[in-house]
Amino acid sequence: MKLFGYWRSSASYRVRIALNLKGVEVAHIAVNLRTGDQRAVAYAKINPQMLVPTLELPDGTRLTQSSAIIEYLDETIDGPALLPADPKTRALVRGAMTVVGADTAPIQNLRVLNHLRGPLKQPDQAVHDWASHWIATGLESLERMVEGHSTPFLYTDTPGAAECFLIPQIYNARRFDVDTSAFPRLLEIDERCQALPAFQAALPQNQPDAPAA
Amino acid sequence: MKLFGYWRSSASYRVRIALNLKGVEVAHIAVNLRTGDQRAVAYAKINPQMLVPTLELPDGTRLTQSSAIIEYLDETIDGPALLPADPKTRALVRGAMTVVGADTAPIQNLRVLNHLRGPLKQPDQAVHDWASHWIATGLESLERMVEGHSTPFLYTDTPGAAECFLIPQIYNARRFDVDTSAFPRLLEIDERCQALPAFQAALPQNQPDAPAA
Repeated sequence: MKLFGYWRSSASYRVRIALNLKGVEVAHIAVNLRTGDQRAVAYAKINPQMLVPTLELPDGTRLTQSSAIIEYLDETIDGPALLPADPKTRALVRGAMTVVGADTAPIQNLRVLNHLRGPLKQPDQAVHDWASHWIATGLESLERMVEGHSTPFLYTDTPGAAECFLIPQIYNARRFDVDTSAFPRLLEIDERCQALPAFQAALPQNQPDAPAA
Repeated sequence: MKLFGYWRSSASYRVRIALNLKGVEVAHIAVNLRTGDQRAVAYAKINPQMLVPTLELPDGTRLTQSSAIIEYLDETIDGPALLPADPKTRALVRGAMTVVGADTAPIQNLRVLNHLRGPLKQPDQAVHDWASHWIATGLESLERMVEGHSTPFLYTDTPGAAECFLIPQIYNARRFDVDTSAFPRLLEIDERCQALPAFQAALPQNQPDAPAA
């Protein structure tokens, strides 16, 4: 399989964690979002949304959207389950995935920030505050959602799909100067994940297309 | 089961379609987003994100996020499958759900538009253009994604989870004056869905909390 991604894209980061948790090796193909590689004609054919990630299967089928890709990996690849078996807990995990994947990350991603900067002529500080605001809002609600759950990970005993979404969002929170001390439970889970090789290897700065530090 | 929702919320609309396709009756509880009911202390306990919908199960468990709720309904309730059985097609369906549910709707929903109007002091026209822009972007990419698929619905022979997301987004496209003629395939599917009772009964204007026409 081939993964088209970008070192700092949080959706690519999610899929890298999932692949690592499953112990699956793929060919990584870098799509540089800063220089507009995603809008190249060749890539637009691969992913009509001109976003990353895209997972290309051996038969040529191309899957897009990190949540769909992670569910697909869980359904087709043996190894640790990324989603719990019980339907109610699955629904809680998917709820957490969506708080990040729908209500937080897409509002603060590069194309939205560029639209604020460009057509809406917002100064850098306002763009930065926009991102921080939506990240803080998303993580605050997630912190409240998991109140009363004392499992080692958000809703489960082992790391899985919910953490694939949470950890890249905490990375973005730090990048946009969000005060993460307001989310003690999420930070505790972040620390637990950061200690695991699957999460370490997926870190943006550990990708070949990341600029040298 | 109880569904907390709002007549014009597209996420509530999605869940109403899914419930109707499954033939499940629930108690509908209106949360008026215009008057801020979602921020009332009692509702914030039900849904810490202070968003709709929330599905309350008979045992008191509360599920949030339309995608998680729809997957849960499909996993636990007999009746027509909302997601196809084949993992690859499931991934395509989930991809389409996410193009709408993550990359389109959350960027044009009421809280984001209010944030543009309030803190960012954007005039009404700019707010309207913002919504139209992101809706058009999302639907354009979805139209390209389904190119070459000639099934009666997006990727399937029967309506399901992908259409639960598509139809409310087309409703929003019309509301924000997006030129839908650019999406002939999506419109064809919209027409096919609109002819079905499950979709008719879920229409915003057919809800008890909708204002009289």
